[in-house]
Parts: sequence; C-alpha cells; structure tokens
Amino acid sequence: MELTTIIGLSAAVLTTAAFLPQTIKTIREKDTRGISALMYSMFTVGTLLWLVYGIATRDWPVLIANAVTFSFSATILALKLKYR
Amino acid sequence: MELTTIIGLSAAVLTTAAFLPQTIKTIREKDTRGISALMYSMFTVGTLLWLVYGIATRDWPVLIANAVTFSFSATILALKLKYR
Repeated sequence: MELTTIIGLSAAVLTTAAFLPQTIKTIREKDTRGISALMYSMFTVGTLLWLVYGIATRDWPVLIANAVTFSFSATILALKLKYR
Repeated sequence: MELTTIIGLSAAVLTTAAFLPQTIKTIREKDTRGISALMYSMFTVGTLLWLVYGIATRDWPVLIANAVTFSFSATILALKLKYR
C-alpha cells in the first residue's frame, strides 16, 4: 500500500473517530455550555451533505466515514439542544 | 455546474467553516470543560494528515479546506489545554 494512501486512510479514521470521545464525554457529563450549537448544526448538515455526495458518486469511503461522523455530530447536537 | 459538485462544495464549506463559531465561542468564553481534549487532539492530527495528503496528491480543495480546519482545531485544542 502506498504511503499517500496510508496517510489518507489515517486522516479519515482520525477525523471520523475523533467525535467518539466528545460524544461519550457529553453523554456522561451533560456539560454542553462550552460547546457551540452553531458549530454542530453546521457540521451535522455538512456531514449529511457529504453522505449524499458519497451516495451520488458511489464513493464508499466518503459515504461510510460521513455516516459515522454524522451520527456522532447529530448526537452531540441533540444533547446540546437538550441540556443548553 | 453539476448538482453533485454543488453538494460536495457545500459539504466542504460547511464542515470547514463549522469550526469557526466554536473557535470564537471558546476564545470569548474560555469555558472548555465540556470540550473533549482527546477529540481535538485526534482531530488536529487528522486534519494535519489530510493537509499532508492534499500536498502529496496536489489536491487543492483538500489542502485548503484542511489547512483552515487545522488552524481552528489547533486553536481550540490550545485553549482547552490552557483553560482545562
């Protein structure tokens, strides 16, 4: 496997998985005051559009990575709106 | 311009720009308790790798989007480490 491909895959895994610790922390602590509702609104819509883009272009890595990130982002947004 | 391209560009702009409101909120309020240091550590390294990937593959949209996101993410991480 080429080095560039390894770098790209590592980048995709990190930027996708990164939202898991934030999701767990927010579910546990319910402290959302420092979290921006505008960020997670924009990011949730953005990942949803990437999901649509991945489906339209049959780009499986984009589709899968953004389906995962969308679910984390939407969870954090919902918790933010619930616990303000 | 094709609809798919418009969707992709909108997704890229949203998922990049989304970090601006979080950066501003964190700079203003310095309330980082609800923010996950692990998330922003992973995300900062991830966007840095996307930046390297964009340079290696001469993919300008990936390079520019991740240069912007990296600067926001690194700022939020620095503020989180400073204000714990």
